[in-house]
Amino acid sequence: MSDMPKHVKIREVGPREGFQFEKGDISLASKISLVDALSGTGVGTIEFTSFVSPRWVPQMADAEEMVAGIKRVPGVSYEAIWLNEAGLARAACFRESLALRPMFGVAASDEFMRKNTNRTVDEKIDELPGWAARYRELGLDWIDAGVMAAFGCNYEGDVETGRVLAVLQKVEERALACGSRLGGIGLADTMGWANPLQIKRLVGAVRDRWPETPVKLHLHDTRALAIANVVAALEMGVNRFDSAVAGMGGCPFAAHKGAAGNVTTEDLVFLCQELGVDTGIDLDAMIEAGQLAERVVGHPLPGKLKSGGNLEKYRARARAAASA
Amino acid sequence: MSDMPKHVKIREVGPREGFQFEKGDISLASKISLVDALSGTGVGTIEFTSFVSPRWVPQMADAEEMVAGIKRVPGVSYEAIWLNEAGLARAACFRESLALRPMFGVAASDEFMRKNTNRTVDEKIDELPGWAARYRELGLDWIDAGVMAAFGCNYEGDVETGRVLAVLQKVEERALACGSRLGGIGLADTMGWANPLQIKRLVGAVRDRWPETPVKLHLHDTRALAIANVVAALEMGVNRFDSAVAGMGGCPFAAHKGAAGNVTTEDLVFLCQELGVDTGIDLDAMIEAGQLAERVVGHPLPGKLKSGGNLEKYRARARAAASA
Repeated sequence: MSDMPKHVKIREVGPREGFQFEKGDISLASKISLVDALSGTGVGTIEFTSFVSPRWVPQMADAEEMVAGIKRVPGVSYEAIWLNEAGLARAACFRESLALRPMFGVAASDEFMRKNTNRTVDEKIDELPGWAARYRELGLDWIDAGVMAAFGCNYEGDVETGRVLAVLQKVEERALACGSRLGGIGLADTMGWANPLQIKRLVGAVRDRWPETPVKLHLHDTRALAIANVVAALEMGVNRFDSAVAGMGGCPFAAHKGAAGNVTTEDLVFLCQELGVDTGIDLDAMIEAGQLAERVVGHPLPGKLKSGGNLEKYRARARAAASA
Repeated sequence: MSDMPKHVKIREVGPREGFQFEKGDISLASKISLVDALSGTGVGTIEFTSFVSPRWVPQMADAEEMVAGIKRVPGVSYEAIWLNEAGLARAACFRESLALRPMFGVAASDEFMRKNTNRTVDEKIDELPGWAARYRELGLDWIDAGVMAAFGCNYEGDVETGRVLAVLQKVEERALACGSRLGGIGLADTMGWANPLQIKRLVGAVRDRWPETPVKLHLHDTRALAIANVVAALEMGVNRFDSAVAGMGGCPFAAHKGAAGNVTTEDLVFLCQELGVDTGIDLDAMIEAGQLAERVVGHPLPGKLKSGGNLEKYRARARAAASA
């Protein structure tokens, strides 16, 4: 495990991923309380809302109020997402207080892309120059490419490594052709298909091809392998991960089938702590944020540390007992 | 990952681990229905009850009725546990139908041992010759040593590799001195302390010292690392694991703090399937058993595959769609 990074950057995406799935009406104040709690954990980036149509995602209709309401802690980047030009325009109004990331999401599966956006993968990539131009107007001369369904797709099945490389290659060519560049690569296991061997294979191939470009993983825990997949990625030197406090976005109830949560932030921070990898995050504060998240959504959330507890507390107690 | 075994043996321990924690009264017929469902999954061994005092564990008072009621499938080993001579005597009445395993459980932590059995580790090891004699009377001339708290202890903190080796060394010496031998080594992460690096360290040290003795892991998922720990163990060539259908013994409710489930059988079988490691288990049948387990206990259980689903179904559907 010699390639393991000394430090990893965690992007907290729980509020953005989680609140959109919640059926109950969660108050603006409750949502803000969770973001504020996360701001105090030491996490470097919090993706906390979406500028999407309130007609499709009514839970995110309060995006502007969220931006206005949260307490910004110096050193923390606050991010939001958008899916179209109108969304970006809404986000851009807050360019003083939001960290605008020039993201460009594309799937490695035509069928998934079509079902989500009514476009093929190539049609989506044809839209890149327009996005790149808008981002350059905002002073962002690169593209953060996020490849969804990079490890497999419920409609198309297994996704080959070559397919993901080809998509990224096209994205880079288009970006370069219009005066931008490929600044970051995100690989998303959107439907929970990845396993540790595949993580090593795809991450290895991407790093061989783009050795200087930062790679970030976005892993869902649909089939229990997310933490094992993180370990495989750490062994490949990956040092950027998305994760969701308490595993928001998922739910242990089988009835809540649609939702498959991201890897849980506090569980990921605990893993890193035990492996000697620094995250800059206070695990106890993140566990408290996870407990708060569960109270805010009003039902059990899948993360384990919020009931299992930080081993450091047991270690401290054992040391005290031994020296007493 | 070149040392990964081609085949692993899974011992299903869900009914034994799980039913003892349940507060609700679960009928004998329901318990038997779960064991019978497990018998049809292809799993090789099912540990399904405990011959313990009904005064302490009333949920297990029906051990004899369980043995009488389950449908035995040829090729499946049915196991039970006992904690004292009286328990072994009860189990031995069924030596025709039960697979009696000459187990000897000892902790790597005095404090844990004392809290559980009111003995120190050395005092417990002093009892080995008596157990070995009873097992030899039953025709079993070896000891299966199970080391509890082998990776850490809530009372004593981290457990060093050397401590576990020393305990196993004493067990082997005592066994040999009385005409038995050390036939198998079980390493139990009883309180959820293990991480992948530590798994590699301890398994490596144990295999260096006892290269011919089978090593079995018993991992709890208290802090979300159980599947990652299995991957680390597979990479070290470990090919025997205990696991619990649906993650029985645990519960995603934070309120149910005492219970920290074993690694979930169907999630483990899925991991192996994806890594190309054979288990001999029909994953779909095990997922159905997991769903049944949840109905039997009447509350959500932590395993993921019972809601996430087997990827093979999606693959088959994708192939059919592609060739249509």
